[in-house]
Amino acid sequence: MKVVNLRKEGWKREPELVRIKNRGQGLESKFAQSVLEIIENVRNYGDSAVFSYAKKFDKVDLTPENVKVSDKEVEEAFKKVPKEVVEALKFAVERVEKFHQHQKENSYFVTEPGIVLGQKVTPLEKVGVYVPGGKAAYPSSVVMNVVPAKVAGVERVVMITPAVGSLEINPYTLVAAKLSGVDEIYRVGGAHGVAAIAFGTETIPKVDKIVGPGNIFVALAKKFLFGTVDIDMVAGPSEILVIADETANPDWVATDLLSQAEHDELAGAFLVTHDNRIAEETVKAVHEKLKRLKRKEIAEKSIENFGTVFLTRDVYHSCQVANEIAPEHLEVATKEPFALLDYIKHAGAIFLGHHTCESLGDYVLGPNHVLPTGGSARFFSPLGVYDFVKRSSVLYVSQEGFNRVSGPARELAECEGLEAHRLAVEVREAIKLVAKSLERV
Amino acid sequence: MKVVNLRKEGWKREPELVRIKNRGQGLESKFAQSVLEIIENVRNYGDSAVFSYAKKFDKVDLTPENVKVSDKEVEEAFKKVPKEVVEALKFAVERVEKFHQHQKENSYFVTEPGIVLGQKVTPLEKVGVYVPGGKAAYPSSVVMNVVPAKVAGVERVVMITPAVGSLEINPYTLVAAKLSGVDEIYRVGGAHGVAAIAFGTETIPKVDKIVGPGNIFVALAKKFLFGTVDIDMVAGPSEILVIADETANPDWVATDLLSQAEHDELAGAFLVTHDNRIAEETVKAVHEKLKRLKRKEIAEKSIENFGTVFLTRDVYHSCQVANEIAPEHLEVATKEPFALLDYIKHAGAIFLGHHTCESLGDYVLGPNHVLPTGGSARFFSPLGVYDFVKRSSVLYVSQEGFNRVSGPARELAECEGLEAHRLAVEVREAIKLVAKSLERV
Repeated sequence: MKVVNLRKEGWKREPELVRIKNRGQGLESKFAQSVLEIIENVRNYGDSAVFSYAKKFDKVDLTPENVKVSDKEVEEAFKKVPKEVVEALKFAVERVEKFHQHQKENSYFVTEPGIVLGQKVTPLEKVGVYVPGGKAAYPSSVVMNVVPAKVAGVERVVMITPAVGSLEINPYTLVAAKLSGVDEIYRVGGAHGVAAIAFGTETIPKVDKIVGPGNIFVALAKKFLFGTVDIDMVAGPSEILVIADETANPDWVATDLLSQAEHDELAGAFLVTHDNRIAEETVKAVHEKLKRLKRKEIAEKSIENFGTVFLTRDVYHSCQVANEIAPEHLEVATKEPFALLDYIKHAGAIFLGHHTCESLGDYVLGPNHVLPTGGSARFFSPLGVYDFVKRSSVLYVSQEGFNRVSGPARELAECEGLEAHRLAVEVREAIKLVAKSLERV
Repeated sequence: MKVVNLRKEGWKREPELVRIKNRGQGLESKFAQSVLEIIENVRNYGDSAVFSYAKKFDKVDLTPENVKVSDKEVEEAFKKVPKEVVEALKFAVERVEKFHQHQKENSYFVTEPGIVLGQKVTPLEKVGVYVPGGKAAYPSSVVMNVVPAKVAGVERVVMITPAVGSLEINPYTLVAAKLSGVDEIYRVGGAHGVAAIAFGTETIPKVDKIVGPGNIFVALAKKFLFGTVDIDMVAGPSEILVIADETANPDWVATDLLSQAEHDELAGAFLVTHDNRIAEETVKAVHEKLKRLKRKEIAEKSIENFGTVFLTRDVYHSCQVANEIAPEHLEVATKEPFALLDYIKHAGAIFLGHHTCESLGDYVLGPNHVLPTGGSARFFSPLGVYDFVKRSSVLYVSQEGFNRVSGPARELAECEGLEAHRLAVEVREAIKLVAKSLERV
């Protein structure tokens, strides 16, 4: 791990900090043209385009008859997954559901004489959840993407996940889908799968929003289809930043740093501390533990690319550094973590105290583990129930209410040169208008 | 206006309805390459790229000294705008602010033994508001984009608007900006202006989110920069749908339809009614009023392209048709409009009753007039305070709380093959773990 001293004037311009701060700015336009072409073909040719891309990219023969996963396959999956895992998933679903219930929003209105104004909150009708295929399955990710949609009241949650090489879908994925409340599953993926649920095909339904992680083709397809459907945030490599003081346990902190590093060669693991001993011992522990990990090669590259210790003046300075980086996961491994909560402005999730390790939050605590990466915690939020509802404004005026506001509306329509806007007000205020023109005579 | 009869089986497949339903699906990829190039250049060369694009596209000589609008210019603007307009804008700002105050959200938390979970709500730090340049100014649009950001608590609202041909900015825009609480104004626009505030340059600050309408170049730049910054929805041509029963006033309805048609040749104006007389008289009134409008040519083309009357069986059928179209503005010009509120699922804003014309909402009622277009009311919401805050999850467990949830977390980490995730739990449950391994012996 690199050690970077920020105990100096102009620390915000320190090149290593700036490099990390700008980690999320990639545009990745080199695949843009091929993804746009896939989207166009799926839009124009529906199933036949989707099935031919599945043949080409995923080496699988899809038909209108086999593209949808049957109830029987889901039942079979339950026989293949160990009972303890099913129980652990049920535990997770229950806790995630319980926490997300608190995010439900009411429609509301306010009144004044002759006027009622408000917003009506309505669940989205149909949501698509993308789940990556392949041998590694992340059932916890299925839970985190699906449960908030069901809590919001979404009627149809449609999961897509690519069958690769054979028609079989990972049983862990199917079990998690069933336990989370997925309504339908289609074995398609990639940019063509995303385009299929964005436009709808002969066999695959059109949805209103697409969420869930995927590779660069999936991410680009979602971005290009933003507007045709809504999408969740743009996901990048995972990252953790730990603020530690002298009370932290270097062994625990090191394991937490590695639990991000093992995800991805581009994952970020940052330690921010004013305590030199903690810095040294943590770095040592990281390198020792690293050697023994099964996913050693990935974790090693990640630590090499982005593993950094920032030395600060005190915990408040550490919070400032954390805000500059705006990490996805932020652990506050200090004696009085709640004392720092106001100072932390930008982080996807804030884990307070020595026992609150990120992996508890990843799986079972309840808040969502789909979080903004690459510094986008400055403006994006964790996935939540609020992502699966939309609002409609509601406006009502009586004749009395109308009279109270019509004058300035007419004035502004006039000044913007929008004549029919003005006329729409004037036809309704005929009596007042006659009075006004008399005045002008 | 076309008249389309939907009083039949399979009305959802009626070609004219399907055409209107699919109105928002354009991808507009033909300018993609040039916009990507502009973005790349601004990212790499900052001000010098921005100023050279301003010279090329807007015929204006910008320098680090003149790019920012001075306080003096804003003061001067107030002398050029009629007093009544200033007063009307103040009235609008006050009402918009009052309504949006109700959208503020609290941070919240929930507890259980040894566990605290919640979300911290934080305003975005810096927001960019795009305001189109040119001779026509829409000060109401400035109000609607800026006020929710200020209500949310955004510290720096940075407006950009292109100076075209000369350095002068429309005084109505400047007055509206000042009254709404804009903090800084830069006279740049186009894709290069958007890229400038997304990345920041030597003279123009980097923001966290960009909102506001613009031409196709601005829209594409925002879309491509989504992720680097957050953006608001993708705006398309404006549209209105009126549900009318026999109590509607055809003259009023016609004016409301025209108040959308006058915006844009691609604007949509739809009447949905079960009453033949209302249909006939409204069509007649539209064509008569059309001839007398100053913006006749635009309105005529719009009515030709998208002006449609849908004949339905009853008001409930009318609501279904409205839901299929998911219009930006929906007027319910019926005897008992509140009786239909539950049936309306998809609309940006719902105007209830005969007096509630859309142009009142556009200017002064209080709810936002930045609304989802092109059918995206299925999943997007009006611009609001919620667009200018972000959430961070907050998690805390004590040793007790940790013990209550650590088992299933370990199980799931194990099943996903993420060893360090499992270790992060295990190092903290050393005691429990020893017990568990003894059990296994």
